[in-house]
Amino acid sequence: MGLGVNSTESVARWEPHARERLERAALALFVERGYDATTVAEIAERAGLTKSTFFRQFADKREVLSGSQDILIELFSGAIAAAPPAATAIDCLASALESAGPVFTPDRHDLAQQRRVVIAANSGLQERELLKRARLATAIADALRARGVDDTSARLAAEMGVLAFSTTIARWSEPANQQPFTTIARTALSELQTRATLLGNQG
Amino acid sequence: MGLGVNSTESVARWEPHARERLERAALALFVERGYDATTVAEIAERAGLTKSTFFRQFADKREVLSGSQDILIELFSGAIAAAPPAATAIDCLASALESAGPVFTPDRHDLAQQRRVVIAANSGLQERELLKRARLATAIADALRARGVDDTSARLAAEMGVLAFSTTIARWSEPANQQPFTTIARTALSELQTRATLLGNQG
Repeated sequence: MGLGVNSTESVARWEPHARERLERAALALFVERGYDATTVAEIAERAGLTKSTFFRQFADKREVLSGSQDILIELFSGAIAAAPPAATAIDCLASALESAGPVFTPDRHDLAQQRRVVIAANSGLQERELLKRARLATAIADALRARGVDDTSARLAAEMGVLAFSTTIARWSEPANQQPFTTIARTALSELQTRATLLGNQG
Repeated sequence: MGLGVNSTESVARWEPHARERLERAALALFVERGYDATTVAEIAERAGLTKSTFFRQFADKREVLSGSQDILIELFSGAIAAAPPAATAIDCLASALESAGPVFTPDRHDLAQQRRVVIAANSGLQERELLKRARLATAIADALRARGVDDTSARLAAEMGVLAFSTTIARWSEPANQQPFTTIARTALSELQTRATLLGNQG
């Protein structure tokens, strides 16, 4: 797995900055003109690249906004599987959130903000986001069950993980934020844990 | 609101069993032929009614499967709003689940089973289900926040409510099940509460 080279990766080596240039061009246009009104041709033109380069990097316009979903699912599942045998479900969630840190680097801060603006303005994209969250929850629950966590705990922990993750992204992409993703993630998870205790103890 | 009569309700009075007949015919056909392959004309014919009667009851074929979503959201939100001032978030979830009891009557048991079979066989319908769950969670969280529950607790409790609800439907619609919906719901919620305590106390 670690040394796996798929065709996208090979192509990416020949056009090293193409993907990021296209992503930046696309998000800028989505913000300016709206997601629906922006064409792939316009994205490619803004990036100074061709339409065929776009389609070597992304299956379609939508994938510019959801391309990191598979990576996140792999990171989360991998981190949970790799946690020490004695790790609790919450330890596993902490490792999963930690593993996403390298995806949310400071140079991607402005992109994350733009992404939120674009999605907030489009109900179709909001539905895609909800589906992505549901798939992430399923992946977390599966990874926890694979460690022997019971089904009910796995489902509840998975929802806590997704809530912590979405809260972290929201806080991290705030214009004024200076904290790294992983610091925010630890706080968000700990806040949820406090609420879990509280709800668990209610009569 | 309580005395409101919309056009659908007025029509429903002249065709008292049309909606249920159409629903039963549709589900039987969806199971037999698949959801995508079934037409509204076939549903109407099987029910011994006309296509225009179908369209007075349902906006489209999909609504046969999702028609109760708005009712559930209204029941849940109403029950949470109507809970006594001293009710905890968990008490509110219990009231919400209790309020859905009248929707899941024994005579609808076979429909619920068919519904699950149809949805399990169709990825588009599975996506609709995920979106419905997300909307139900949003409605529960909104209703809890309106009572003064803090945002993080409201979101986590809402996910617990949706998990309890989906577990309850799954157990209730099992062919061999004899227990009423509300009994199953109480057990499901209490199982989740136990897990919340457990996750809350993990190091």
